[in-house]
Amino acid sequence: MAGLLMVVSGPSAAGKGTLCRQLVKETDVELSVSATTREPRPGEVHGVDYFFMTEEEFVKTIEEDGFLEHVENFGKRYGTLVSYVESKLSSGCDMILEIDVQGAAIIKERFPECILIFLLPPSLKALNERIIKRGTETPEKISQRLSKALEEIEHIVNYDYYIVNREISQAVEDMKCIIRAEHSRVTKNISEEIIKSFKEE
Amino acid sequence: MAGLLMVVSGPSAAGKGTLCRQLVKETDVELSVSATTREPRPGEVHGVDYFFMTEEEFVKTIEEDGFLEHVENFGKRYGTLVSYVESKLSSGCDMILEIDVQGAAIIKERFPECILIFLLPPSLKALNERIIKRGTETPEKISQRLSKALEEIEHIVNYDYYIVNREISQAVEDMKCIIRAEHSRVTKNISEEIIKSFKEE
Repeated sequence: MAGLLMVVSGPSAAGKGTLCRQLVKETDVELSVSATTREPRPGEVHGVDYFFMTEEEFVKTIEEDGFLEHVENFGKRYGTLVSYVESKLSSGCDMILEIDVQGAAIIKERFPECILIFLLPPSLKALNERIIKRGTETPEKISQRLSKALEEIEHIVNYDYYIVNREISQAVEDMKCIIRAEHSRVTKNISEEIIKSFKEE
Repeated sequence: MAGLLMVVSGPSAAGKGTLCRQLVKETDVELSVSATTREPRPGEVHGVDYFFMTEEEFVKTIEEDGFLEHVENFGKRYGTLVSYVESKLSSGCDMILEIDVQGAAIIKERFPECILIFLLPPSLKALNERIIKRGTETPEKISQRLSKALEEIEHIVNYDYYIVNREISQAVEDMKCIIRAEHSRVTKNISEEIIKSFKEE
């Protein structure tokens, strides 16, 4: 059976990174490896941390429609390779991608069977407290982050699932249940497989 | 938040009864109480085992479109009251109904947000063995049951989820995950609620 492609979005400080890492640790889900044109940092391994590409390779891949989505950040490019994701999924591997609301919308259009999950902090107040606690942001930056969070959350209507991250262990359990339930979904293709297997097994 | 209406179907001897009872025991899910025109047996309580109705009351309720579905068996009528299910759901209670493929299709049409779950024995061979093991059926009856199972399983394509009952404890876990995941679903109504609660909490 094919694997699931899951996309996790949500405001910064919602806990997306922790959720994905914990899920990878506790289950067979794999975190999707991005392609990038930035230089590898010491210790980073091609195919594990990133697929490192030259600008020319990256542009050629864009032209060949080889990315699920791609962005540019400070002159460096990042993208998700269609070929990589498709080979993982067809081998039965469940994949998780951490991506912003714009990227998620692009992936859903290209790959409608992907599952969009929105991770929420318990409240705007809690998000504010989390950012202040980190102590790395100026009051201006904090206010920017909060208004961005309010903007992002309006996109929740395009998502399949939402998880309120009150307690990370519970958010991980929510994810595990979503995965288990999605593997129990009846689709047109799968119903033929089920019937066949029921008759033959 | 409103409760979920779940409908479980599947061939006889798939384990629907055990699954529902176990789920009710381990969670807050309630088994839907049917209405019937048959006489109460000793010990049966109105509103707990059944809603006992006269033929006239039942027919009047049909005329008023008051049943989600209803059937007649050996001259006695059985049905699921819309008013009862709606009041349970709006109080936040998750409800489970054990019903055949025809009844499930009727409920889904009337109540599209209900969740249809198909419970399968591991295989036709396993189903055969289970029925033989019970020792209550003639070879002719067994063969009838198996062909009915093959007929019923063709309806799986209309279901939202399927569960293969290899081990009842695992089937119960599957159900619990489906319920938890369904409560994490984003719907148009819910996304407004989520945003409001995020801003206010």
